[in-house]
Amino acid sequence: MRRARERSYLWVGFMRRRSPAVQGRGRHPAVVIVVGFGATVVVGTLLLGTPLATTEGDSSHWLTALFTATSAVCVTGLVVVDTATHWSTFGEMVIVALIKVGGLGIMTLATLIMVIVSGRIGLRTRLSAQWETKSVAATDLRHVLRRVVVFSLICEATVAAVLTVRFVTGYGEPVGRAVYLGLFHAVSAFNNAGFALWPDSLMRFVTDPWICLTIALAVIVGALGYPVVFELVRTWWRPGRWSVLTRVTVGMNGLLLAGGTLAFLATEWRNPATMGPLDDSGRMLAAFFAAVMPRSGGFNTLDIGQMHSSSWLVTDALMFIGGGSAGTAGGIKVTTFGFLLFIIWSELRGEHRVNIGHRRLPSATQRQALSISLLGVILVTLSTWILLVITPHDLDQVLFEVVSAFATNGLSTGITADIPLAGHVLLSVLMFIGRIGPLTLGTALALKQRTRRYELPEEKVILG
Amino acid sequence: MRRARERSYLWVGFMRRRSPAVQGRGRHPAVVIVVGFGATVVVGTLLLGTPLATTEGDSSHWLTALFTATSAVCVTGLVVVDTATHWSTFGEMVIVALIKVGGLGIMTLATLIMVIVSGRIGLRTRLSAQWETKSVAATDLRHVLRRVVVFSLICEATVAAVLTVRFVTGYGEPVGRAVYLGLFHAVSAFNNAGFALWPDSLMRFVTDPWICLTIALAVIVGALGYPVVFELVRTWWRPGRWSVLTRVTVGMNGLLLAGGTLAFLATEWRNPATMGPLDDSGRMLAAFFAAVMPRSGGFNTLDIGQMHSSSWLVTDALMFIGGGSAGTAGGIKVTTFGFLLFIIWSELRGEHRVNIGHRRLPSATQRQALSISLLGVILVTLSTWILLVITPHDLDQVLFEVVSAFATNGLSTGITADIPLAGHVLLSVLMFIGRIGPLTLGTALALKQRTRRYELPEEKVILG
Ligand SMILES: [K+]
Ligand SMILES: [K+]
Repeated sequence: MRRARERSYLWVGFMRRRSPAVQGRGRHPAVVIVVGFGATVVVGTLLLGTPLATTEGDSSHWLTALFTATSAVCVTGLVVVDTATHWSTFGEMVIVALIKVGGLGIMTLATLIMVIVSGRIGLRTRLSAQWETKSVAATDLRHVLRRVVVFSLICEATVAAVLTVRFVTGYGEPVGRAVYLGLFHAVSAFNNAGFALWPDSLMRFVTDPWICLTIALAVIVGALGYPVVFELVRTWWRPGRWSVLTRVTVGMNGLLLAGGTLAFLATEWRNPATMGPLDDSGRMLAAFFAAVMPRSGGFNTLDIGQMHSSSWLVTDALMFIGGGSAGTAGGIKVTTFGFLLFIIWSELRGEHRVNIGHRRLPSATQRQALSISLLGVILVTLSTWILLVITPHDLDQVLFEVVSAFATNGLSTGITADIPLAGHVLLSVLMFIGRIGPLTLGTALALKQRTRRYELPEEKVILG
Repeated sequence: MRRARERSYLWVGFMRRRSPAVQGRGRHPAVVIVVGFGATVVVGTLLLGTPLATTEGDSSHWLTALFTATSAVCVTGLVVVDTATHWSTFGEMVIVALIKVGGLGIMTLATLIMVIVSGRIGLRTRLSAQWETKSVAATDLRHVLRRVVVFSLICEATVAAVLTVRFVTGYGEPVGRAVYLGLFHAVSAFNNAGFALWPDSLMRFVTDPWICLTIALAVIVGALGYPVVFELVRTWWRPGRWSVLTRVTVGMNGLLLAGGTLAFLATEWRNPATMGPLDDSGRMLAAFFAAVMPRSGGFNTLDIGQMHSSSWLVTDALMFIGGGSAGTAGGIKVTTFGFLLFIIWSELRGEHRVNIGHRRLPSATQRQALSISLLGVILVTLSTWILLVITPHDLDQVLFEVVSAFATNGLSTGITADIPLAGHVLLSVLMFIGRIGPLTLGTALALKQRTRRYELPEEKVILG
């Protein structure tokens, strides 16, 4: 029985690898993703490059337009010019549109791929057939995509409503302006983009729980990733039935949030330039917010530039780990990091197998998790070296900037605008790689891997 | 045929795992290694703690004695007091003895384990039997150990002779003193210990090729590891026959040496506090020396504290990678790093298998390589965070110090003595873990792994 099954898998794999739809016409999803994001960046750069997009009515430097467009499409949030003062309302709307397209693109693509890889909705054979007959717009697929879009719109509308009410009642903004601010920051928060319309990000709201908790919640939900959120919606009261993906994502999120909050409280409690002036509950709120944002919201309510360098290192680590798979978060993903811990633990005990819950982690997934992380470490180290050579800044700040770009995070110690042009190009490339790299890599590998699935059934999880 | 072989392997594994010699009496090599090194550190601390060991005739602070003993046994070279002025001749001789014991311990243990793991000398069944009958001192084993001891003595004597002649002819030292200096630095260099009898390490010899190249060569040979050196001695003219271990070690060493030299030349060429005042050939020599020492000699001829922070990052990376397996070098080892590059390259191409030369890298070895590296990254990050919290220094210098301790390297930007006591304890622990951690881990896993060897014959390589 098992033998026969193995053979059939191998056979299917052999057939598919040679099918013209997959190889011959170059329709590999990885290519689609790179081209899609690249084209969106180009369109965004052209739009932001017009005089219409700036308040002064002059064209921006092409690199400013490119950097901002990349930052928006990759939902990063790093900026070389102040968003509110440099860009006109048209420019801001271009940015929010790029964020929406970028965020939705990531969520739908990643969700789609995860559905295909995990084979949960039974798409496997059907999709394979569709791919070849080009009738991709089948019911299942359409269903998934619609749910992602509807879900993101509902979340953004809710967040926008809360923010709008607060801007009107708490800060006396006119309703029209409050709605605009609410929508902009709701989209920016839910898509983990981190763009804000104040030069100091959200520092003026540091002790306002309405703004801070709403934005933090939007960032968390957006960063969990659609598959996890949807599974939680269906089965949150039965953790025993959660998939490995959901368990690891939720567990690691809780762990990193708690650890981050404690670390920031410990090192910033008496810092007069950050938490010092706040009361205790204000400090709690600020520390929690600072712990949420590296995964990977990118807003800040404390002055990052004034933080202790140990806080920067904690933020670096949290940013590098990032958020959930198939969400709008960046980084190597909490899933990957969680797997790493399990793998290292197994390795330390000399165990071959890595069990999480009642599932065995496939060895290919283990290798992917380890490779993605190490590739990230190598990429960050090389980029940091280049920036150290071409800027006068210290490792502290340069590493922070590089990790922030790689993890599409958007936090900064304040040196982004000071970096020379070559550095901006490097950061743009890092944002692009950080955004689509792991996803594409994960995709390409996950899809390729299926063609060789000649082991016992295992739970497949995408790492990108 | 193959089936039968698999079964017998499994069976042997099953038997051995329950054999009283391995489990019941706790004679696992990992335990032996930890206890052995720990005991040597304790003896060293007691000896260095006596008034006899200091020039002033007072007892040193116990932590100074412990730190120095750990640094010597783990062949690291980090110091909290100046070796020549603080310690008496007796103290210096204790240090050189600890270096010799530590270095020899590492080389023999690692070589022994590698021989057992790779099964090259056909020890497998014999040793297994010996283990149980306690007749470990068999011919093969004794032969290997004697070769290691003789080889290290020949190397040290040669280096000492060259250095002695140079100290007499070039610097007018009396013959007795020159012999003492020659022996001390020969042992320190060949064992990659990095202890020097001048407060500025070897900075006074920066343009002296006799001293610099001799020491660099000793460091390189010691860091290659005995198995590689011996294989090179036998077959250096036939690279096609080299084992995977030798190929990767030699290749990565060349790559890292060339890359490091170029990087230092690029960033320090005009630095008035380092290479600036030297002529071109002096710069070449200094850059080469600076590129050799992170792997992991620990001497310096340039003022590390005055280097550009990008040079520090390059040094961090080189130190972290370290030297060859089963040598006196530290770090994750060039073998591990080389494997990582092959693994990531395979992963990027979506390949399951990793081929190096004409051999397939076992998946267990792949996981070990990846796990050791990531465990190193996590350990370094956590330790750096702790040191950042308890010291006023920047990430640049703290990271350098932590990586230097973890990689048992001994280079420093000059903050070692300024770090508070808790920091010295942390660095001592890091040196100990860095020294025996990967080795022990590699050992434990490599030996355990053999008990489950139910795949096709593959080339086994230890990563520690
Ligand atoms: K972001
Ligand atoms: K050393």
